[in-house]
Amino acid sequence: MRTIIVLNGPNLNMLGVREPGIYGSDTLAAIEERVRQLGEELGVAIEFFQSNHEGAVIDRIHEAFGRADGILINPGAWTHYSYALRDALSTVALPVVEVHLSNIHKREAFRHVSVIAPIAVGQIAGFGADSYLLGLRALVSHLERG
Amino acid sequence: MRTIIVLNGPNLNMLGVREPGIYGSDTLAAIEERVRQLGEELGVAIEFFQSNHEGAVIDRIHEAFGRADGILINPGAWTHYSYALRDALSTVALPVVEVHLSNIHKREAFRHVSVIAPIAVGQIAGFGADSYLLGLRALVSHLERG
Amino acid sequence: MRTIIVLNGPNLNMLGVREPGIYGSDTLAAIEERVRQLGEELGVAIEFFQSNHEGAVIDRIHEAFGRADGILINPGAWTHYSYALRDALSTVALPVVEVHLSNIHKREAFRHVSVIAPIAVGQIAGFGADSYLLGLRALVSHLERG
Amino acid sequence: MRTIIVLNGPNLNMLGVREPGIYGSDTLAAIEERVRQLGEELGVAIEFFQSNHEGAVIDRIHEAFGRADGILINPGAWTHYSYALRDALSTVALPVVEVHLSNIHKREAFRHVSVIAPIAVGQIAGFGADSYLLGLRALVSHLERG
Amino acid sequence: MRTIIVLNGPNLNMLGVREPGIYGSDTLAAIEERVRQLGEELGVAIEFFQSNHEGAVIDRIHEAFGRADGILINPGAWTHYSYALRDALSTVALPVVEVHLSNIHKREAFRHVSVIAPIAVGQIAGFGADSYLLGLRALVSHLERG
Amino acid sequence: MRTIIVLNGPNLNMLGVREPGIYGSDTLAAIEERVRQLGEELGVAIEFFQSNHEGAVIDRIHEAFGRADGILINPGAWTHYSYALRDALSTVALPVVEVHLSNIHKREAFRHVSVIAPIAVGQIAGFGADSYLLGLRALVSHLERG
Amino acid sequence: MRTIIVLNGPNLNMLGVREPGIYGSDTLAAIEERVRQLGEELGVAIEFFQSNHEGAVIDRIHEAFGRADGILINPGAWTHYSYALRDALSTVALPVVEVHLSNIHKREAFRHVSVIAPIAVGQIAGFGADSYLLGLRALVSHLERG
Amino acid sequence: MRTIIVLNGPNLNMLGVREPGIYGSDTLAAIEERVRQLGEELGVAIEFFQSNHEGAVIDRIHEAFGRADGILINPGAWTHYSYALRDALSTVALPVVEVHLSNIHKREAFRHVSVIAPIAVGQIAGFGADSYLLGLRALVSHLERG
Amino acid sequence: MRTIIVLNGPNLNMLGVREPGIYGSDTLAAIEERVRQLGEELGVAIEFFQSNHEGAVIDRIHEAFGRADGILINPGAWTHYSYALRDALSTVALPVVEVHLSNIHKREAFRHVSVIAPIAVGQIAGFGADSYLLGLRALVSHLERG
Amino acid sequence: MRTIIVLNGPNLNMLGVREPGIYGSDTLAAIEERVRQLGEELGVAIEFFQSNHEGAVIDRIHEAFGRADGILINPGAWTHYSYALRDALSTVALPVVEVHLSNIHKREAFRHVSVIAPIAVGQIAGFGADSYLLGLRALVSHLERG
Amino acid sequence: MRTIIVLNGPNLNMLGVREPGIYGSDTLAAIEERVRQLGEELGVAIEFFQSNHEGAVIDRIHEAFGRADGILINPGAWTHYSYALRDALSTVALPVVEVHLSNIHKREAFRHVSVIAPIAVGQIAGFGADSYLLGLRALVSHLERG
Amino acid sequence: MRTIIVLNGPNLNMLGVREPGIYGSDTLAAIEERVRQLGEELGVAIEFFQSNHEGAVIDRIHEAFGRADGILINPGAWTHYSYALRDALSTVALPVVEVHLSNIHKREAFRHVSVIAPIAVGQIAGFGADSYLLGLRALVSHLERG
Repeated sequence: MRTIIVLNGPNLNMLGVREPGIYGSDTLAAIEERVRQLGEELGVAIEFFQSNHEGAVIDRIHEAFGRADGILINPGAWTHYSYALRDALSTVALPVVEVHLSNIHKREAFRHVSVIAPIAVGQIAGFGADSYLLGLRALVSHLERG
Repeated sequence: MRTIIVLNGPNLNMLGVREPGIYGSDTLAAIEERVRQLGEELGVAIEFFQSNHEGAVIDRIHEAFGRADGILINPGAWTHYSYALRDALSTVALPVVEVHLSNIHKREAFRHVSVIAPIAVGQIAGFGADSYLLGLRALVSHLERG
Repeated sequence: MRTIIVLNGPNLNMLGVREPGIYGSDTLAAIEERVRQLGEELGVAIEFFQSNHEGAVIDRIHEAFGRADGILINPGAWTHYSYALRDALSTVALPVVEVHLSNIHKREAFRHVSVIAPIAVGQIAGFGADSYLLGLRALVSHLERG
Repeated sequence: MRTIIVLNGPNLNMLGVREPGIYGSDTLAAIEERVRQLGEELGVAIEFFQSNHEGAVIDRIHEAFGRADGILINPGAWTHYSYALRDALSTVALPVVEVHLSNIHKREAFRHVSVIAPIAVGQIAGFGADSYLLGLRALVSHLERG
Repeated sequence: MRTIIVLNGPNLNMLGVREPGIYGSDTLAAIEERVRQLGEELGVAIEFFQSNHEGAVIDRIHEAFGRADGILINPGAWTHYSYALRDALSTVALPVVEVHLSNIHKREAFRHVSVIAPIAVGQIAGFGADSYLLGLRALVSHLERG
Repeated sequence: MRTIIVLNGPNLNMLGVREPGIYGSDTLAAIEERVRQLGEELGVAIEFFQSNHEGAVIDRIHEAFGRADGILINPGAWTHYSYALRDALSTVALPVVEVHLSNIHKREAFRHVSVIAPIAVGQIAGFGADSYLLGLRALVSHLERG
Repeated sequence: MRTIIVLNGPNLNMLGVREPGIYGSDTLAAIEERVRQLGEELGVAIEFFQSNHEGAVIDRIHEAFGRADGILINPGAWTHYSYALRDALSTVALPVVEVHLSNIHKREAFRHVSVIAPIAVGQIAGFGADSYLLGLRALVSHLERG
Repeated sequence: MRTIIVLNGPNLNMLGVREPGIYGSDTLAAIEERVRQLGEELGVAIEFFQSNHEGAVIDRIHEAFGRADGILINPGAWTHYSYALRDALSTVALPVVEVHLSNIHKREAFRHVSVIAPIAVGQIAGFGADSYLLGLRALVSHLERG
Repeated sequence: MRTIIVLNGPNLNMLGVREPGIYGSDTLAAIEERVRQLGEELGVAIEFFQSNHEGAVIDRIHEAFGRADGILINPGAWTHYSYALRDALSTVALPVVEVHLSNIHKREAFRHVSVIAPIAVGQIAGFGADSYLLGLRALVSHLERG
Repeated sequence: MRTIIVLNGPNLNMLGVREPGIYGSDTLAAIEERVRQLGEELGVAIEFFQSNHEGAVIDRIHEAFGRADGILINPGAWTHYSYALRDALSTVALPVVEVHLSNIHKREAFRHVSVIAPIAVGQIAGFGADSYLLGLRALVSHLERG
Repeated sequence: MRTIIVLNGPNLNMLGVREPGIYGSDTLAAIEERVRQLGEELGVAIEFFQSNHEGAVIDRIHEAFGRADGILINPGAWTHYSYALRDALSTVALPVVEVHLSNIHKREAFRHVSVIAPIAVGQIAGFGADSYLLGLRALVSHLERG
Repeated sequence: MRTIIVLNGPNLNMLGVREPGIYGSDTLAAIEERVRQLGEELGVAIEFFQSNHEGAVIDRIHEAFGRADGILINPGAWTHYSYALRDALSTVALPVVEVHLSNIHKREAFRHVSVIAPIAVGQIAGFGADSYLLGLRALVSHLERG
């Protein structure tokens, strides 16, 4: 059975609180529950991790090395500048799918560029909590195609 | 029953022929067949249209006005410069999901920018033919959430 | 009697439908009728053409060569990138007046630049349907001054 | 009866003298006379003011506050850098039409950008003295549409 | 007893009139009165000057040379381009505090850059009329620290 | 009684040690003491927090949600790139005042841009330890105006 | 016997008419006749196609797939922005030689960049009708070297 | 006998006071006296004018039209942004020599660009008061060569 | 005896694992052992610290203040954006030598710029594990020259 | 009989040695021999010169003044920065054809710009040694057309 | 008696030949003769050197070290890119005056920037052969002021 | 026994003379002597060459082809623009180590970019004469690792 790590970057613990006009009213726990259910349906184990500490997320990525099969990540604001996070993902050489709740391409200019995307399999943005579910499907399909 | 228009821009008729290292070996017909099946499963009607003529795609978008419920589009190379296509999509005020076979964010610099994305619900890129299926799911969910 | 060609680019067939907050609620037919009446008043014959196909508009411009006296054009979104349209207008060496319904200088940054304006007599933007009437007056005066 | 203020910025007092190849041989007085006549025809009162002093034009704009109905302005070279003038026009919240004798979009690069246009109703450029007459028509129509 | 010159640039005479959504509803006279009172409290003499004429403000700055102890300035729109004003302030070598009613860093891009700030002691922006009071406190403290 | 959180970013624990030519010789403890006294005078409770860990500051901001009334922050070097910090401040939707000891607008080019300022009430820079006192006054006034 | 497709983009049907000072007085038919004769001499069959419709040229390129041996193209103004044309040429994986009548490197800045050149064997510009003949020789030699 | 107008822009009235490390300790009066003497020696009449008001300098330039033979100007900080001044100089079509006390090419980046230089005969910068004397010689020679 | 702190930034704990094609197959422990041996040879004490937490590295730098003699640092991806790290190094005013395993100047564009280098004694890049040994020699020589 | 100078810039003496994957395996002598033969066929005399010294090539260009009829040049890396070479070619006012072995438009970004092309008749790039032969034909035709 | 070295860069040996519309019809020998005469008049010895070889001019500058008193240089096209020449001039620490025959500020954009000017006393451009005479006067005055 | 060529670019012959504040007081001969001694110690033969002539250094690089084992180069100011030198180094396909006396990353902006570094093994900058010794060690280790 494959294992997928679902990572969430800074401020995503505040989902449901933070600017609901942009990010929706679901809490992170609610989203994780939906992801877990889809994971069961697709036959993959899911592990969740959220932190506001870049170093903690990097440590968690390293920990997945040689053990997990893929990473689904919403890097939050780190998307736009955390080359350290990018290098962590490259280091462990696992397939990465990048997801965003909002459509980053229609927001402030600084959000249009992802430093993560060039090392990801693909990117999904704009579908609220559905972005995670779509991302999980995308990652599982990618793994199944081998 | 909702109707979704699936539009494909220039050169996508050559799928399976064109640079399979980048775009995969599926033909457009094969992809459309998979989309059609998922459409049935999700309970939406699908109409397909591909053209290498920007004007023909714009005409087709206008034709959908007041009749279709959403548009799933792979704008191909027009993604990066066709403001006419963007305005056509704004004109009909239908929800738009933009999909790409390849991860445009890791290719040539000119492919990093989409002039379509700022008027779309969201963007999905990098999952080969799966991008279309994910896009259809995303669009249908979006419509269902109203 | 002089002949003026009035050209409209992509999506302008949808006037009255398309984003009325920006473009107003007049249809293109209604605007053309007003232009025709002013043409009569000013003693010039008017021919109208709209297309969403760049090639069709270029063909129409070529057809005007050696036969028409001036061109009034709303290039729509092509304003911002269609060097082919610009070259078509240069090719026939007729005086060109460029008009826009909205004030392109206060909208998205990509709309601030016109690739057509450098080969036009002048540009009029921001007055809704009036932009066409003002443009016709400007073109006729220009022709009369010889 | 509506009142329109017609403002001219730096060096426009030298019209007819200054580079006639670019700006034509009409004097400012001659242009103002034509504008006055058209104002009569259109049923609006016109007041004229020209100055080479940015402060004097700003003072004049403030003076119009709560008394005039619209402003027709050729900002001359201030077009390209006078944010003070722009703010003066915003301050009095009157509709503004910006006009230029020459087609600023085909001249030196610094003339392609107007810092005034984003707060104007619209812009007319390239028709010599006719730009003023077209601008007056545009402004009066705008006021009439309410 | 120290003397502070409080300078206001273009359009600030229209405070209370001009875009109250951005600048608040206090008049300049009201703000000056509050500044005067705080000056009394802090034991400094205040002189006020406002002009829409860049030259007049420069003359006033020169006049302060060798006589005043510091300058509190809201340069208005000149903030963004008046190198002449900047040089005038450098010329007299008095400590300068720059204040703004609005938070210029969240408005149009051209307002993000101050050509005055590099020669000022510091900058205060975004607190409406309070910016002046804070600026006066800052300047007096600066002078007291010698 | 209102509660204000005073946050200090990286390296500010070294105040009095770090480049005194730029930042002054006061220690952070001394500054906090002055802020505390002014808080008492103004009738607000103050809580202090400094960390060199971006994640710790974000956690602290979240912790303030629904409990504190405003945030006074010197983001240190994070000012120029920490979009995660910016989003944390937006998330809790509290009024933010940004302060800097030095005049960031006259230092290296990278310090001229604040990614925090666009979501702050205002910014105060250049007055050494006084920047904090001015910032506290500004924030309390802002809260009092409601 | 090898087959070469000679493609001409927008406005090249107007050769001899269009700005002869820049493009010379030969008609396209005259140039094609010279190319045909050189083709005979070099032992290759030539097919010609010109269109002002981007889509028509893309269709023609696709049609050549698996049948022709090389493409000689003057993309006209599309040179500078038609990524769709570029992708069409990549799709069919035939050797491409890009030619221009004028020296695009000494004209307006927008003409200095070719989006086609990076996927071509080479580029020839500036020799009027001779550019086509040189391009044909270059392409045939390239094919002969295998 | 030829007449030369010597114009000085903002803050130059403060010469000898203003930043003597950069501009030297000569007063403007002293420099004018040296220019006057050289003018006598070279057989030309000199008129001097300095103002901190852009409008006043423009008025003075217009006044010289048809009466003076050349203009020697130190535009001060206007060098870098006053397109109005540039247009005033173009308007009167007199030969212009631009001088600067300091070497503007080694100071802040904004001082490296002169908007005046493109319409001047030439530019002299960096020689203190000597720049004026050299400029006068240059202008007189230019006039003598006809 | 002098003390040198050898700091390693994010992902360097994964050396030998991470992209060996770029970074080589030595583990960090192996490199540290070689550095320790050279330190002995050169008569300096070495302390090692690696963390994926920016805050932890900053804390460690502060801890070195007044106790260590120099810092050898491979900032990893922080090289390109961590102004907080840069300020930490400036704060303690110790000589810094920056080293990189790979030649950052021939990799992705974002790696060409170091925000650390301007405050370092020097930079060494491209020699794999040898970069550390060279860096240690450079730092010791620098300290010996006093 | 016309005389053509064929100039080769830096490192072209190493052809056949230097990066044969990019530049091919022909030596410069072999290419020159092919050019000489084509010259005979076309009835022009050819003189060859190669140097790694910019000054020597400039001297050689000057020497050709008033004696030769045209210049065929492969400027090598000087293409991208040697304005001195460009001016030398302008100085002698001979027609220049610029050739490159490789397609400079698909290599590193710095090779996309030629400072020579704006003063050349035309440019040919990408055809290996054939570029020289095509260039010679182009130059001779240009001379024959007069 | 002071010694001045007058250096001329590439292509200036062709003066009188090269583009007389831009550079005038004087030969370099004629200009040098005029400079020599003025040198006598001013009581300084002049040495001349011109080369098209950057290295030769650098050698000549080094040779002047400790022997000459100042350098008058027209760097020709090297003005815009030869940092080696700039460093040579810095190396010998002699006062440098930079002169140009043409007004480089009104020509092609690449000529607007001088890499030499930031290390020169000043720059004189646009007065033909007079630029040298003015430059000599400027340099001698500079030396006399000590 | 391996042979290393140590190359020095323009102005490095003046070491000890040139700006000792930046480059130190060692002469080039003294540095070469230290390099020679270290070469002996490391068991490699060293050859030295310095020239102010780009062409001479390129000739010397070519001469090393097939005979030397590596190149240690301080390209001086050519670092920043000499693509000819870069291509010369690529041509001979020898390992290159680039060294600089000063830390180019903290000096003027133009010195931050090296056009040589992308084709070098690595770069060492900022350690004065030690940079050469470190560079020699780096190069010899590189060769030994094979």
